Amino acid sequence: MLEQLKREVCRANLALVERGLVIETFGNVSGIERSRDLVVIKPSGVSYKNMRPEHMVVVSLEGGKVVEGRLQPSSDADTHLILYRGFPKISSVVHTHSLHATAWAQAKRELPIFGTTQADYWRGAVPCTRSLTAREVKRDYEANTGRVIVERFKKLDPEQFPGVLVASHGPFTWGKDPADAVHNAFMLEFVARLASETLRLNPKVGPLIQCCGTNIFSGNMGREHIMVKSNPLN
Amino acid sequence: MLEQLKREVCRANLALVERGLVIETFGNVSGIERSRDLVVIKPSGVSYKNMRPEHMVVVSLEGGKVVEGRLQPSSDADTHLILYRGFPKISSVVHTHSLHATAWAQAKRELPIFGTTQADYWRGAVPCTRSLTAREVKRDYEANTGRVIVERFKKLDPEQFPGVLVASHGPFTWGKDPADAVHNAFMLEFVARLASETLRLNPKVGPLIQCCGTNIFSGNMGREHIMVKSNPLN
Amino acid sequence: MLEQLKREVCRANLALVERGLVIETFGNVSGIERSRDLVVIKPSGVSYKNMRPEHMVVVSLEGGKVVEGRLQPSSDADTHLILYRGFPKISSVVHTHSLHATAWAQAKRELPIFGTTQADYWRGAVPCTRSLTAREVKRDYEANTGRVIVERFKKLDPEQFPGVLVASHGPFTWGKDPADAVHNAFMLEFVARLASETLRLNPKVGPLIQCCGTNIFSGNMGREHIMVKSNPLN
Amino acid sequence: MLEQLKREVCRANLALVERGLVIETFGNVSGIERSRDLVVIKPSGVSYKNMRPEHMVVVSLEGGKVVEGRLQPSSDADTHLILYRGFPKISSVVHTHSLHATAWAQAKRELPIFGTTQADYWRGAVPCTRSLTAREVKRDYEANTGRVIVERFKKLDPEQFPGVLVASHGPFTWGKDPADAVHNAFMLEFVARLASETLRLNPKVGPLIQCCGTNIFSGNMGREHIMVKSNPLN
Repeated sequence: MLEQLKREVCRANLALVERGLVIETFGNVSGIERSRDLVVIKPSGVSYKNMRPEHMVVVSLEGGKVVEGRLQPSSDADTHLILYRGFPKISSVVHTHSLHATAWAQAKRELPIFGTTQADYWRGAVPCTRSLTAREVKRDYEANTGRVIVERFKKLDPEQFPGVLVASHGPFTWGKDPADAVHNAFMLEFVARLASETLRLNPKVGPLIQCCGTNIFSGNMGREHIMVKSNPLN
Repeated sequence: MLEQLKREVCRANLALVERGLVIETFGNVSGIERSRDLVVIKPSGVSYKNMRPEHMVVVSLEGGKVVEGRLQPSSDADTHLILYRGFPKISSVVHTHSLHATAWAQAKRELPIFGTTQADYWRGAVPCTRSLTAREVKRDYEANTGRVIVERFKKLDPEQFPGVLVASHGPFTWGKDPADAVHNAFMLEFVARLASETLRLNPKVGPLIQCCGTNIFSGNMGREHIMVKSNPLN
Repeated sequence: MLEQLKREVCRANLALVERGLVIETFGNVSGIERSRDLVVIKPSGVSYKNMRPEHMVVVSLEGGKVVEGRLQPSSDADTHLILYRGFPKISSVVHTHSLHATAWAQAKRELPIFGTTQADYWRGAVPCTRSLTAREVKRDYEANTGRVIVERFKKLDPEQFPGVLVASHGPFTWGKDPADAVHNAFMLEFVARLASETLRLNPKVGPLIQCCGTNIFSGNMGREHIMVKSNPLN
Repeated sequence: MLEQLKREVCRANLALVERGLVIETFGNVSGIERSRDLVVIKPSGVSYKNMRPEHMVVVSLEGGKVVEGRLQPSSDADTHLILYRGFPKISSVVHTHSLHATAWAQAKRELPIFGTTQADYWRGAVPCTRSLTAREVKRDYEANTGRVIVERFKKLDPEQFPGVLVASHGPFTWGKDPADAVHNAFMLEFVARLASETLRLNPKVGPLIQCCGTNIFSGNMGREHIMVKSNPLN
């Protein structure tokens, strides 16, 4: 079942490695078939070298029950499921420990928007969650990771902000399909590094939105394709 | 038409990728045939993997009208055209979002000249434009990007300063042909990174010109080929 | 003798190079056969290109005498032997001068635990030894390097903290076999770089353990496999 | 003539590129035949791709006259010749604009010795020259570059300190043959980067020599081969 989605999810997991976003096994991609409430996710404990579409695991959106597959789903599956339930319009979730995005997450800072590179993907700063409480860590850690993300997006549109930093942990991104979510993970890593370098050169530089007004994000600002988005802050 | 220039522009676009100056589709190269007022530019929406000379688009220097080619020109074409009109001696334009040059652009700082590596290419600091106003962003963004560059060069010679940083955006470079403009984009990225590291080691180090006098730039200072340039500051 | 261990040690030495942890000849791996008190270690003066299992040298755990092999053992062999004697449960030792871990060692700082990436490997900060005295450097330098490490672990469990920084020198890691010890060397380099970037973004960020309590390390926090460890701090 | 040395010099020039020490044409290697006072140096204006031993140029140690070869010698030849005349025991000279060593040179700071990695190559800090005066830049720039290096070594032994930083310019290294000089250029780049990272983590860390006494450098401190050197500071 869901053979096409399995291929996409498998390819996206391998793309994470090729693009340098994953060290060791610190990364996973899933995709959802909304019409059937089924999620396809990377298995646990299969090396990237041998990973094939048939290894992907199918779990139910609500209960997280394995519907198909002989392997265990990624241990982060519960986080993915919470995100799919909380953000009904996203179709794929990616988690990495990529270097620069994780550094921002560990620094517990949201990533300010300093230029057009980021503006073509995020409608402002990349948000950062609050820290989990000790209780949230001890019990139901993975699900609680998803819950603090959804909590952080109470006033944000996940389509306008296709990724988040989880404090003391690392980035999660999402998209309209697995390739798009991986693309956003790659862009998040790039803008995280770019922002680190920017701050080093000018610790007082203000975010883009404070310089030019909120309307600056309409139109094409450096990317090849025009992306007019409604402003989620209004 | 302009088959030779199309080959050069296509090859230069691919060279941007090979040299690590472009992530995703954030980059474009154009070249001009001055005798006919025609510009050859990268198309929009063609992946680098499949890009071939016949995909290049020919547009008119003045109106920006597509003269030949079935694809759309790069969305940054208007910026390129403004530069060709404002700087009559340049023959190619390159735009990237390369990491370190973009960090300086986002920091809204000109790049000071700290050593001979930069002195062989730029006659002093690499200039940075002012920020665009909200109005300039909202209407005619790409052309206004070109206009703030030309405005910044009111007292500078583009041949002595073969590139610029656009505030909150990224670098543009130019040259006597597409390969030369790409070479300058590569050098700008290198000297941007070098200056960042230099400042970290010695935040108080002064620019070269303040140490040794303006004449230090005549002669060969580390590059293989002698480049005697008239001093644009006099 | 010990042909299987020789193959593992040889492969692990080459893996250090492949993973970018070794520059020039600044690195070595050994493994121990506990039942016979014999250590297999990289030879001195053999280039990585030509290194084969039969070049590995077998030395006695207690005296450091060469038991088999025509080449000299790595000049760091005495450090390895002290570690095997001081830490009875480890089975392999790795030494590198990898960039970021060595920078922390040179800075003489322990590596604070800022996130889940490190928490899956170290039970807290990666410890740093005291500096050797001039006397310890002049006489028996390699053995004394091992001794300051063992001294630093007086109150720490080497299985909970699979690596250390030697002040002004560089990192040593260990593990349950050569591949595991190399894996820990790789993770130490990654978390060292990650912590450097984190500190740059937020010099005041506190270590994980101060935010959430000591129990946060039980369970799986971002790694694929559950690792429940007893708490060495109690 | 000097065919063997030409092969070594050619191979060393190519090794600079392979090891990432040279961008564009910013680098050159030479070697000397002391018995005949002849220097073999990289030609000017030959791309690395096509460089072959027969392109190397032979010049006289004293006058710098081309003795053999149809190409121009590297424009930095005069600097090399001054070094061979000032340092009678060195047999090869390398110049690069490698990133981190050049950043220290531009910062006009000597490179402090923070650990054993550097101690195995330099007997202390890597020295930095004074800035050239405007007059020295304007007339005889390349020879004056050599002269400020020799001036800086008035109280230093070039065999104990196999390289230097030229203020606002970049590094020069030397060695007992071209491969050794390239090796030292590589190590200088590595220890420069390592020192930058170290300082960022602990701006107040002291140099090694102030911690443990001058004798700490006798014996093997992390390198595979023992290097006992007489102390040039006594």
